[in-house]
Order: sequence, then C-alpha cells, then structure tokens
Amino acid sequence: MEKPATTDHPILDVLTRRWSPYAFADRPIEPKKIRSLLEAARWSASAFNEQPWRFIVATKDDPDGFAKALACLVEPNRAWAQHAPVLILTVTRPTFTRNDKPNRVHLHDLGLAAQNLIVQATGMDLFAHQMAGVLLDKVREDYGIPQDYEPATAIAIGYGADPAELPEDVRAKEEAPRSRMPLSEFVFGDNWGEASPLVTTS
Amino acid sequence: MEKPATTDHPILDVLTRRWSPYAFADRPIEPKKIRSLLEAARWSASAFNEQPWRFIVATKDDPDGFAKALACLVEPNRAWAQHAPVLILTVTRPTFTRNDKPNRVHLHDLGLAAQNLIVQATGMDLFAHQMAGVLLDKVREDYGIPQDYEPATAIAIGYGADPAELPEDVRAKEEAPRSRMPLSEFVFGDNWGEASPLVTTS
Repeated sequence: MEKPATTDHPILDVLTRRWSPYAFADRPIEPKKIRSLLEAARWSASAFNEQPWRFIVATKDDPDGFAKALACLVEPNRAWAQHAPVLILTVTRPTFTRNDKPNRVHLHDLGLAAQNLIVQATGMDLFAHQMAGVLLDKVREDYGIPQDYEPATAIAIGYGADPAELPEDVRAKEEAPRSRMPLSEFVFGDNWGEASPLVTTS
Repeated sequence: MEKPATTDHPILDVLTRRWSPYAFADRPIEPKKIRSLLEAARWSASAFNEQPWRFIVATKDDPDGFAKALACLVEPNRAWAQHAPVLILTVTRPTFTRNDKPNRVHLHDLGLAAQNLIVQATGMDLFAHQMAGVLLDKVREDYGIPQDYEPATAIAIGYGADPAELPEDVRAKEEAPRSRMPLSEFVFGDNWGEASPLVTTS
C-alpha cells in the first residue's frame, strides 16, 4: 500500500512517499539494503560532529535476537511490529565525548540521522514506522546499556503489505487520511504566532 | 562548492550531496522554494502526530527581520550565517497538546522535520547549515515565545559559494575532509558495543 502526502507545495517524491504503515510484508530486507539504511544515517549532521546515535539492529532471520528487540516495545507496538523483518532500537549519548558536558541536542541529532535512514528506506521502496513507545528500562537492562547512553526510540522497517490482514482497529488507522497542520499554523515571521507572509501567499 | 560524502555503501544522491557549508552565495532563495522546504518539514512523522515543530523564518529582503533573527545566534555563528539569505529559528512544544503531558521526543521529532527540510533543500541545489549555538533566552525574549514552547536550533540556508571568500580559520574547516565513525562503531547486534554481523561483512 502507498499513501502519499497530499502536499500544498511540491516536495521531492521520496518525501511525498514516506509514510509510517502498520502492515509489513513477510519478506526480508536484503542485507546490503540494511547497510545502505545505516550508511544514510551515518552521514547526517550533528552538533560538533558528535554522532550521538547508536543503533541496535535485529532481523527476523535471527529469531532470538528479533524476539529480544521486540520484547522492548510497548505491547500495542509489539502487536504490529512483530511482522516487520527488521527492528532497530535507537540509543543516544546525552553528553559530548570530548568533554562530558551535556549535549542539549542529542535527541534532535538522533532525529536527523533517523530521518536520513527513513528517506533512504523510502528510496529503496521500503517503509519505516518509528516508535516512541519503547520500554526504555528494559532496553537498558536487557542489552546492558551503560549509564552514559540512553535508549530512545525504535524503528520497524520492511516492505509494504495489504492492510486487509491487519486487525480491525489498526486497519482503520492504516486507512485513515493523513493530516498535518497547514504551514500558516507553524511558520512564523517577525512575531510569534503570526503566519509568515511567505506562507500566506503562493 | 560541493563536498559529497565518501560512502562505504551506496545511498541516495540527495543524501550524499547534503553537506553543511559555511560559505553561502549572495543570492536569494525563491519564495516558492522556501515554501517547499517548509512543506517537506510538514510531512515528517511525529509521536501521536503532535507536530511539535515551529519555524521562525527570516529572509534578507526584510533586513530588520533578518537582523533580529541573526542577533539570536552565538557570535561565531553570526560571523558566517549573516551571508545566508534565509535563517530559520526552530522552536518546539515539549508537551503534548492533547493532554499537556511531557513529550519525551519533541526534540527528536524536530530533528525528523529538520532533516526532511534539509533533504528537500539539497534536492533543490540549496545547502543548509544547522546550529545548536543559539541564544535561547534571547529568542524567547525577542520573539515573545510563550512558556509552553522552547527555542531549539537555527538553520542557515542558501546557495553554495566559493570558500575563497571565507576568513582563514573558517575556510580551513570548510575545506577539511568530512569524517564519520565507521558503521561498526555504532551499529550493534544482540550485545551492546559489539558490531552487528550485518556491518562487518559486505
């Protein structure tokens, strides 16, 4: 299934097609494609080039490893993410390596890397669904994450599938229209809360 | 100037070309391209579709507005970012609108949106340079940001330029090779700190 964004202004096709599905096909991702996903994340920007992101990657052809990662998701996410062939648990370093001072933007920079990964996924006809619903303490305990790192999110990745196989409640979400605030609600000019003239003309 | 990533595994051209320069050409960005940048950010994913991102956009054809935004950067960033035709100050909402509970991933989700914007920029032959070095209190005061929002980062955007015009110290950074950790240092399998077999074979 595809569910392209209904854009008000033109954007790259790979950004229009990006979408977070609940249904994934029972088909593995080729290892070389997994490497390209991670390579894309690798080349994103970060404050002081800290590269605070770490990725724990589990694939279904290692059933025990996959089960270990899956068990770290909250139950509603486990229900659908179990069908994805690849699960990634993301972890960040909240301090700078060079001086141990707090890195205010470590989660922001993880987001930059994650989006690069997801754009790369879309460019290879894959879909990714990110989750904040992760059992953070369980990730730390089960994987022995040291105190200077923090579990952050999870990403399910795979090929798309027909939503007909989904449970009724999830299927309704899968088929609902995509919605976003208009630009005029979040793009401001000189004054907070007032739409930039750039986005009120066209 | 272009400075493509030297990738170990193939990634999309638009991700290879993404790079954060210090030199920007003295050329405005077409308003319709600015709208496409923001539209790309608009369609990124976020926890509970909260869309916690807000963007304050300043362009050089409004000199007062541009000066106001520029003054919110730390001085070393002002030195080069003053030459970009567009500056964006980013702001996030750290709580969910629906229930006012903390949104643990608000900065992460801003990062997703920022990277979408930056990929779109690269796709339109623009360059973007993100900054964590922002005078956060000054943004809050000068723009009247309410307490339920937080200033976060800045992004300078424009067309590329010859680094020959840059001051000596910045020019050295501009021309230095790009570097990143190898995948084996940040992609793990079942055990924290041990490279995933996916990235040690090829």
